Amino acid sequence: MKRFVAILALALFAAGSLQAQELSNFAFGDRKPVISPEIQQDSVTFRLKADYATIVKLSGSWMPNPWGDTIDMKRGENNVWSVTIPLPAPEIYTYNFVVDGVAVNDPQNVLVQRDGTRYLPMLLVPGERTENYGEATLHGTVSHPWYDSKILGMSRRLTVYTPYGYEANPKKKYPVLYLLHGAGGDEEAWISMGRTAQILDNLIEKGLAEPMIVVMPNGNPGQAAARTLNIPEKSIDRRAPENRDLYVRSLCTEIVPFIEKNYRAIPKPASRAIAGLSMGGGHTISASILFSEMFDYICPLSAAGSATPEQIAALKKAGVKLYFLACGSADFLFKGAEEMHAKLQEQGLNHEYFVSEGGHTWANWRLYLNTFARKLFK
Amino acid sequence: MKRFVAILALALFAAGSLQAQELSNFAFGDRKPVISPEIQQDSVTFRLKADYATIVKLSGSWMPNPWGDTIDMKRGENNVWSVTIPLPAPEIYTYNFVVDGVAVNDPQNVLVQRDGTRYLPMLLVPGERTENYGEATLHGTVSHPWYDSKILGMSRRLTVYTPYGYEANPKKKYPVLYLLHGAGGDEEAWISMGRTAQILDNLIEKGLAEPMIVVMPNGNPGQAAARTLNIPEKSIDRRAPENRDLYVRSLCTEIVPFIEKNYRAIPKPASRAIAGLSMGGGHTISASILFSEMFDYICPLSAAGSATPEQIAALKKAGVKLYFLACGSADFLFKGAEEMHAKLQEQGLNHEYFVSEGGHTWANWRLYLNTFARKLFK
Repeated sequence: MKRFVAILALALFAAGSLQAQELSNFAFGDRKPVISPEIQQDSVTFRLKADYATIVKLSGSWMPNPWGDTIDMKRGENNVWSVTIPLPAPEIYTYNFVVDGVAVNDPQNVLVQRDGTRYLPMLLVPGERTENYGEATLHGTVSHPWYDSKILGMSRRLTVYTPYGYEANPKKKYPVLYLLHGAGGDEEAWISMGRTAQILDNLIEKGLAEPMIVVMPNGNPGQAAARTLNIPEKSIDRRAPENRDLYVRSLCTEIVPFIEKNYRAIPKPASRAIAGLSMGGGHTISASILFSEMFDYICPLSAAGSATPEQIAALKKAGVKLYFLACGSADFLFKGAEEMHAKLQEQGLNHEYFVSEGGHTWANWRLYLNTFARKLFK
Repeated sequence: MKRFVAILALALFAAGSLQAQELSNFAFGDRKPVISPEIQQDSVTFRLKADYATIVKLSGSWMPNPWGDTIDMKRGENNVWSVTIPLPAPEIYTYNFVVDGVAVNDPQNVLVQRDGTRYLPMLLVPGERTENYGEATLHGTVSHPWYDSKILGMSRRLTVYTPYGYEANPKKKYPVLYLLHGAGGDEEAWISMGRTAQILDNLIEKGLAEPMIVVMPNGNPGQAAARTLNIPEKSIDRRAPENRDLYVRSLCTEIVPFIEKNYRAIPKPASRAIAGLSMGGGHTISASILFSEMFDYICPLSAAGSATPEQIAALKKAGVKLYFLACGSADFLFKGAEEMHAKLQEQGLNHEYFVSEGGHTWANWRLYLNTFARKLFK
């Protein structure tokens, strides 16, 4: 029976004008363009032209289980499949269609984020929470310089944000935030999923944050750059004692000097901040321990990392201006954050403990950046 | 009958474990990863896991008619569809799958190019022609500064390439190539489809081109930036007399000064080159006419533009060092190139007429850049 249906279906498709219309989603010629996604007052509609599909579904990061949940779409006029759902709470989401079991990006949506492996269409739901996630009027410059790492034996790519006005004020010097990604990410993660440029542009334009340089390195010691550049990776045995903290050492003894030499950065602890999410939160804690005099602002976010009482005492002695510890209450690392918070309290290190709803997600990391960036260098 | 088949097919799919496997292309858990594309000696294999698809095809830019031709793929073990084809000639191609009539990107391929509207998976076939299209050892810096345009009434995004060594040699000054995109493109076109950074990195590393800055502006006067940034566009009546050459005037009286103020650029005609493809070739010709003293190197590529004998005489008087006119013999604009070549000859303007095979394609524009970049500033 299954075989019979398959053969029938094949015959049906072969008879149709499949070939000529395969690119129909791109609205060539006089076809009416498909609009997707379309945000209305309280709802959002997704549409996909799929002439020969049998089942089309929608998958989105706002769903309770983003890796499994889907919503069925319905075939309409001109083979445009669609579904309208209640507008999710203000946030940036990613989504994709599932056409006969295969994940498909929305051909109508040019707003795309890269999560380290895939490009995914983006949905920005406007609201108070997301008011700094869209484009500001004045834009900083995003650049990708390369620094030569002796420690890692290669030239490595950075992402650097300089604020609006950096070019026009050639005598002005700026403080620097070093912003670290998590496992699976690279030097593109914070600028793409994290909306660093948009958040900083908006905060600076509104006078809510100090104009600052933001440096986003690649935290994978074997990688010269994001995989989008197709540079072969170096295999590094991270358990070998001589390889311990390789990346953190490159960060503090190579990247920081590179930035302070090549950008108009203020080379003082009071003008250096370090923040990182998950694995990058661990790097943040390690850097603050190994180079306790270097950063006056330390922000571990949903961090995979810990510190001993002695290490915290050393930090306290070094005179930290802000210790911003953030985690989602549903995060699988929340217990670690609670323990770190208790240790900081025990040692009397003045700190801010920021607990949000939700888990180990970019929604939280954007919220944290949008929160702690206002507290830096003040 | 059609209706009957459709209902049967739906029932069949609904009974399966569709939901759990929708993300199966991403090789979660212990599934064997799918490799695609895989280049062998003389062939290349494309693969896509598609559990519930009825027809899967491959579409590629190497096919005689890239907008219509497709090749059928076959379902294999574990519902991995595949096809092996003879390796196309060395070049960079884009391709996509067509799953039951819907265009699908290759989830296994992180190498993606953006052509102005879509992200498309990329296939780089190695060979002599493409030897400068992959990553060099030493990389220049790619940045996205914004310049304030009074002429266009907005802050606008640029793409700027500075060569390797720019940061380490703070006293060195560089010549500048202004590189213009065509209709449908934006400030990301040359860096993405054109492989500007890779071509310049390789040529400079091999000593075949002078270290230079390359500036890639956005040539759409109503746009502040590529659509990937979601900034509303300004409607500009290009036919109104006061709006004539708006972009070319912004380029020559705003962008050139912005670059020469903010980068270590040599501010002399002998250190300025201008090149552009299609519409950008027209912009190149216009700029060379309106600002005939500005650029000593002029390279219209597959250009939509022309010049009068008087205008060419003025150029000759200004003392052009290189006039590099390039076009594909199958280009729909080839007749215009032939006419321009004849006019340049008539007026006795020393020039190089570079005719390649093929048409109005990025394969040609990469070839032209890889060719004329070696001749600049020498």
